[in-house]
Amino acid sequence: MRIAIDAMGGDEAPKEIIAGALESIEKLADDDKIILVGPEDQITPLLPSKIIEKGKVSVVHAPDVIGMADSPVDSLRKKPKSSIAILAKLGKKDEADAVISAGNTGACVAAFQMRMRNLPGVVRPGITVVFPTPGGPVTICDVGANIACKPIHLYQYGVMASIYSKNLLNINNPRVGIMSIGEEDAKGNENVKKTRDMIKADKKMNFIGNVEGRDIFKGICDVIICEGFVGNVMLKLTEGLVDGLFRAIKHELMEEKISLALKFKPVMMRIYQKYDYNEYGGALLLGIDGTAIICHGASKSKTIKNAIMASKRYYSEKINDKIVEYFADSPFANSVQNDKTQELDSNE
Amino acid sequence: MRIAIDAMGGDEAPKEIIAGALESIEKLADDDKIILVGPEDQITPLLPSKIIEKGKVSVVHAPDVIGMADSPVDSLRKKPKSSIAILAKLGKKDEADAVISAGNTGACVAAFQMRMRNLPGVVRPGITVVFPTPGGPVTICDVGANIACKPIHLYQYGVMASIYSKNLLNINNPRVGIMSIGEEDAKGNENVKKTRDMIKADKKMNFIGNVEGRDIFKGICDVIICEGFVGNVMLKLTEGLVDGLFRAIKHELMEEKISLALKFKPVMMRIYQKYDYNEYGGALLLGIDGTAIICHGASKSKTIKNAIMASKRYYSEKINDKIVEYFADSPFANSVQNDKTQELDSNE
Repeated sequence: MRIAIDAMGGDEAPKEIIAGALESIEKLADDDKIILVGPEDQITPLLPSKIIEKGKVSVVHAPDVIGMADSPVDSLRKKPKSSIAILAKLGKKDEADAVISAGNTGACVAAFQMRMRNLPGVVRPGITVVFPTPGGPVTICDVGANIACKPIHLYQYGVMASIYSKNLLNINNPRVGIMSIGEEDAKGNENVKKTRDMIKADKKMNFIGNVEGRDIFKGICDVIICEGFVGNVMLKLTEGLVDGLFRAIKHELMEEKISLALKFKPVMMRIYQKYDYNEYGGALLLGIDGTAIICHGASKSKTIKNAIMASKRYYSEKINDKIVEYFADSPFANSVQNDKTQELDSNE
Repeated sequence: MRIAIDAMGGDEAPKEIIAGALESIEKLADDDKIILVGPEDQITPLLPSKIIEKGKVSVVHAPDVIGMADSPVDSLRKKPKSSIAILAKLGKKDEADAVISAGNTGACVAAFQMRMRNLPGVVRPGITVVFPTPGGPVTICDVGANIACKPIHLYQYGVMASIYSKNLLNINNPRVGIMSIGEEDAKGNENVKKTRDMIKADKKMNFIGNVEGRDIFKGICDVIICEGFVGNVMLKLTEGLVDGLFRAIKHELMEEKISLALKFKPVMMRIYQKYDYNEYGGALLLGIDGTAIICHGASKSKTIKNAIMASKRYYSEKINDKIVEYFADSPFANSVQNDKTQELDSNE
């Protein structure tokens, strides 16, 4: 398997990205290869010569870098030789089986969608993350690829995230909920209501109806469908709140007694490890014709290593084939075809 | 001041509601009066006769109750003698200076808006909560009154929440952010972008631009504007996550050593107290021509007592006058008038 990585993506690039790639090597199979994408003069000096000789790691030159704050579509247009643009080309030209970046999320989504295209039957790809919770892992789609969701997109997010949850997290018949602002059927905005009607027409999905923000951590569902805007706020709110709460606890413990704070430290570390989303190695862009993982901008080497291992699992379980098969047989296969044509027209 | 309370609203009604009302009495001024709304035969037996004789507390009979799961508009139509409907009438008929309910949020919003109407210049009221954070209290509007937000609504939420933050939380020149999915100006959906343009035309607001979910707890802003759907998910996610995290910590501590868990308990209690949103006594429906507070469905007597005290502060600081004054002078006063007419047309 050939795994291409944006060496320049993220706050700690290229150092942590390359370190993560190197850390993964011993876990890879003999015929796996890593392709690092970015400016050769910045990447090659960081690679041990032994590694290059063995042919495990190669470099594909990309002189430009898209910054975290750059406008996604504009910067892709202005920087066709950026590491993200070249990465997407490798995925498209079938020179890589998986692409990974911790760079500008919007630019990644746009580049992967534009170059690699969607899987047959998929209207819009969605970013999918796994929340580790006391009730088990909860798969959430979309968390920021699509800020203009239609019911067909949301329905498809439910299908794709279910296939992911079943095949990669080994959850049999995953319970699917849709994020809304009330548990009852009558509640939610128009998008939620229309999506619910679509899902109910698909007897294969184990749909439990509306869920609310507080339900994520209650173990009542395995998959949550949500609009990209809402999902992104949820993801970042969770990150900020966990961080803020641990800081508040630390502060209070220090005021109480330093010895108590020291005793609490290993407990905190254990909770961090148990619920560390870095374990899942980033977010999959589900629905793309390929394997695409987008990592957190603050990714350290460990996240990159985990993302590489996650891409291997995703690829080898042939999740994409299962998605295509499902949609070919979906009650909305025809309407999707029409909708997709419109989507492409309006995108281009 | 006359404060009317829905005695039947919430999971613990009428017991906790009435207890909260009674607990507030000693903190009220001589000319303050409490009006309990609900079925007389259920309320009167719970009131000490001394209290009734003193005239501090009276009961207004409302035989029906709207359940937490009932459809808001339908149930208001079918139950004109429900405690929420009668409560809203008291507010409208100027028989109460404040109305408080821990009942069905949707029904409260609909009833208050329909009966009490909006303040002059306000297009849509928004539910406003205060998040206690390590960086200080953050006022968020809207958290669920309005699931079809327009830019003018969002702009007005920013204004009203700023006035609240300044006058009730004593924050001088509150920093206002709008919830989006990226910090940069170019990011966000159409609603966010258009709202940003409106706000920038209003030189009086201390606008800091986009904020993300993680920023709520960082102390970078005092007011956050968001769409009702997003705000509601944020509010409930926060509630569920804090609860889940404390349970996870407790579980880990028990595994480590019970004595450590016992030592940690007072620290946890202190954090709970410090960041307890019950202290703020519920959420204000800002923009209504009156003082309306909606409490959490799980409210205990303490929350109701705090809501009563909060309604007194809101009323005596004449926040509504300040809102009306601001909008009369707003750069969008004329367009608001047009938009408002449309709103009313489409609502009725």
